[in-house]
Amino acid sequence: MNKKVAVILSGCGVYDGAEIHESVITLLRLDQRGAQVQCFAPDIDQAHVINHLKGEEMQPARNVLVESARIARGNVKDVRELRADNFDALIIPGGFGAAKNLSDFASKGADCTVQLDVLAAAQSFVSAAKPIGLMCIAPAMAARIFGTGVTCTIGNDADTAAALGKMGAEHVDCHVEDIVEDPERKLVTTPAYMLANSIAEAASGINKLVDRVLELTHE
Amino acid sequence: MNKKVAVILSGCGVYDGAEIHESVITLLRLDQRGAQVQCFAPDIDQAHVINHLKGEEMQPARNVLVESARIARGNVKDVRELRADNFDALIIPGGFGAAKNLSDFASKGADCTVQLDVLAAAQSFVSAAKPIGLMCIAPAMAARIFGTGVTCTIGNDADTAAALGKMGAEHVDCHVEDIVEDPERKLVTTPAYMLANSIAEAASGINKLVDRVLELTHE
Repeated sequence: MNKKVAVILSGCGVYDGAEIHESVITLLRLDQRGAQVQCFAPDIDQAHVINHLKGEEMQPARNVLVESARIARGNVKDVRELRADNFDALIIPGGFGAAKNLSDFASKGADCTVQLDVLAAAQSFVSAAKPIGLMCIAPAMAARIFGTGVTCTIGNDADTAAALGKMGAEHVDCHVEDIVEDPERKLVTTPAYMLANSIAEAASGINKLVDRVLELTHE
Repeated sequence: MNKKVAVILSGCGVYDGAEIHESVITLLRLDQRGAQVQCFAPDIDQAHVINHLKGEEMQPARNVLVESARIARGNVKDVRELRADNFDALIIPGGFGAAKNLSDFASKGADCTVQLDVLAAAQSFVSAAKPIGLMCIAPAMAARIFGTGVTCTIGNDADTAAALGKMGAEHVDCHVEDIVEDPERKLVTTPAYMLANSIAEAASGINKLVDRVLELTHE
C-alpha cells in the first residue's frame, strides 16, 4: 500500500517562506517513490515579506497558507487539520520560513518557540513513533519538537550548531549530500541549502532524506 | 566546456506566474547535466494576482521580475539583458504566466502578442539558430516567435491546439512523458502540466526536453 506523507510548507520563497527548490524536490521524490502527499501550512501572516530581487522588506503582509498554495498548486490544508493518525510520515523543508513563520528561531535563537499549530501537528508524529524528516534550518525546531538529547544536523555552521546545542539538541556536522539520523526518535535531517552551492547538491541530500524517511515507515 | 542556458520565468505560481514545479525541475535537470543557468524575467506587473488557495483575484499588483526571483533564489535578470550571444540555449517553463505575462494568449487566444522584451530575446535565439525549449502552455508563443509552419505541442487539448493552428503553428498531439521536436527550427516542446496528473509525470517529459535541448547545442 502507498505510504501517506504530510509536508509542512512555510510560505513560498527562500527569504521569507519555504525554500522552493527544497520543497519541490521533496514533492518530486515522494511522488517518484509512490508516496501519497498532502501539503499543510499554518494559517498565519508571514513574519515579513522580502523582495527576493532586492533583499528588502516590502508591504503588504502575505499569509503563509495562501502563499504555500503556490508551491502546492492550490492543494494545501491548514496545519491545524494535521494529525499523525492519517499519515505515515512528516517532512518539513527549509527556507527562512521555517525559522520565521513555523518558529521564531531567526529572531530568538536558542530562546525560540515553535508555532503552536505546527508544534501540535509535529508532536503527534513523535507520540505515534512515526518518522519525521527536517531539512536545511528546520532542524532548529528539533529540540522543541522532540525534547533534549535529539540528534540532528544543520550542516556545519558553528553559531547555529551552538544555538541548537543550547536548546538541548546534539548537533552532528554533515556534508550536503548526506543525512543524519536519530534512530531512536526516527528523525532524519540533511543540510540542503544550509550548505548547497547548487540545486543538484541540495537534491542529493534531500533525495536521501526522503528515501530514508520512507524506509522508516516500514520499521 | 559547460553549456550556458537561459531560462525565462513569468512569475511564481501556476495560476498567475511560472509553474513552480516545471521551473524547478528544469533548473534541477540543467544543473544535474552540468549546464550553467541564468534566469530572466520581464520587469512588468503581472496581468493579475491569484490567491492560489481560493482561486480568486487579489490585490495589490505584483511584479513578474520580483516574484520570479523567488524561484531563482534572487539570481534573476531583466529579460531586456538577454541575447543569444551569451548563451547556448533558451528554455521557457509554463504556468499561466506564460499565457498572461509573457504573452496575452490567455485572454486573446489566436490574436495574442508576445511581450516585446521576451519576443526580442527569444527571436535572438532563432536568428542564431540556437535551440529553444518551450513547455506546457508556453508553445502558444511558438508561431509568434518562429513564424508560421513551426511544429509544436501543448498536449492534446483540441481548443488550444486549434488556436495554435489559427496562428500558423502545426500542432502535434503528445503524451505527457514525451517531446515534440521541430528539427529545422531546433524547437523542443512537451505538455508538462497541460497533461500531467502528478509532479513525477511532469518531470518525465521535462527531463526529456532539457536533455534534448542540451543535445541540440552540440549539433
